[in-house]
Amino acid sequence: MPQNIPVVEKILSANDKLAQENLARIDAAGIFAINIMASPGAGKTSLIERTVRALSPKYRIGMINGDIATSLDADRAAAAGAVAVQINTGGNCHLDAVQLQSALDQLDLSSLDLLIVENIGNLICPAEFKLGTHKNVIVASIPEGDDKPHKYPSMYRGADVLILNKIDLLPYVPFRMEFFSQGVAALNPGVTQFNLSCTTGEGLDAWLGWIDGQIKK
Amino acid sequence: MPQNIPVVEKILSANDKLAQENLARIDAAGIFAINIMASPGAGKTSLIERTVRALSPKYRIGMINGDIATSLDADRAAAAGAVAVQINTGGNCHLDAVQLQSALDQLDLSSLDLLIVENIGNLICPAEFKLGTHKNVIVASIPEGDDKPHKYPSMYRGADVLILNKIDLLPYVPFRMEFFSQGVAALNPGVTQFNLSCTTGEGLDAWLGWIDGQIKK
Repeated sequence: MPQNIPVVEKILSANDKLAQENLARIDAAGIFAINIMASPGAGKTSLIERTVRALSPKYRIGMINGDIATSLDADRAAAAGAVAVQINTGGNCHLDAVQLQSALDQLDLSSLDLLIVENIGNLICPAEFKLGTHKNVIVASIPEGDDKPHKYPSMYRGADVLILNKIDLLPYVPFRMEFFSQGVAALNPGVTQFNLSCTTGEGLDAWLGWIDGQIKK
Repeated sequence: MPQNIPVVEKILSANDKLAQENLARIDAAGIFAINIMASPGAGKTSLIERTVRALSPKYRIGMINGDIATSLDADRAAAAGAVAVQINTGGNCHLDAVQLQSALDQLDLSSLDLLIVENIGNLICPAEFKLGTHKNVIVASIPEGDDKPHKYPSMYRGADVLILNKIDLLPYVPFRMEFFSQGVAALNPGVTQFNLSCTTGEGLDAWLGWIDGQIKK
């Protein structure tokens, strides 16, 4: 249906414009903001819990959670020490800049240092929609398999940071690290990568150190 | 954007109509057809490999694979003994009835007993689009976590069969079987469920027996 292409382009360009406005608001408040994306079950929420627990003694953290249904993830972030806002998208498969704007309205931005946005669990659609954060973080995980960069290129291409989670499961599943890394290098050679386990805590310090270095002092 | 709703409804209804036509073609050829859906990395392709390897001595199997990029999955199914057709959707996040129709054109339907469609790795969008198969199969996996039925209700609601894969990883990850089952029961109390591991082979026989019972003799 080629007649629909101009409409899609118009929606994306309106979204990008609003994303710029969101980013300007976030910058004006002196906040560092990240957009965390992954397939369902890669460990976004566990990573956020760990991050909030480690950094909330030092920084004031806001968390915006997008989900199809339930507030399970926002509840976990709030319990860890963040100010959490839940966006239930109904059936929608990604967050967009309009939804981020309305979530920002619900937060006292002047009271925050770090804003973590947890996108919908989906390796495809969220990559198309800028929100207005500083960095895109993609979470991959060992049991998902080593072929994911090859099969979901747009998500890997657009990431600033790649977290490879659940490395504690490496002894129990077939995962060719070299095949995974080849896929990543072909799409996004400069990406910052952290291999870690949110279950054991291994490798978390490097990730936490990276965030700490990004937050405006 | 409420003005868009009638357009979406029209697209879905055209898709459903074409799905019925696909199903009529499949039925006329005496084929049993399943649509396998899951999040990325739940193990769709491993399940299909195992299924094709076990059943191809007895039945003639076609496999239609939808993916954003690469033919890795179709290659694996073909190596296991299926006649495989690859659909690369570009950026598209689900298969639809039009794509199934053109894939059916590439197969000699009269030579097949079983048709396996592997949908795009996505727990959200594929649930909205009927293809024209007899049964929807959703593959969940232990390391994805026990909260997935609660968080992705439409996919679980529309499934005829639920496969809970990677049960060999139960000793290594936190997974509350009761919480998972509560979510499933609330959405889809009559679903046929198989717990199995494509790595060890545990539980596969029950699934293979179910498929065998569905194939027209």
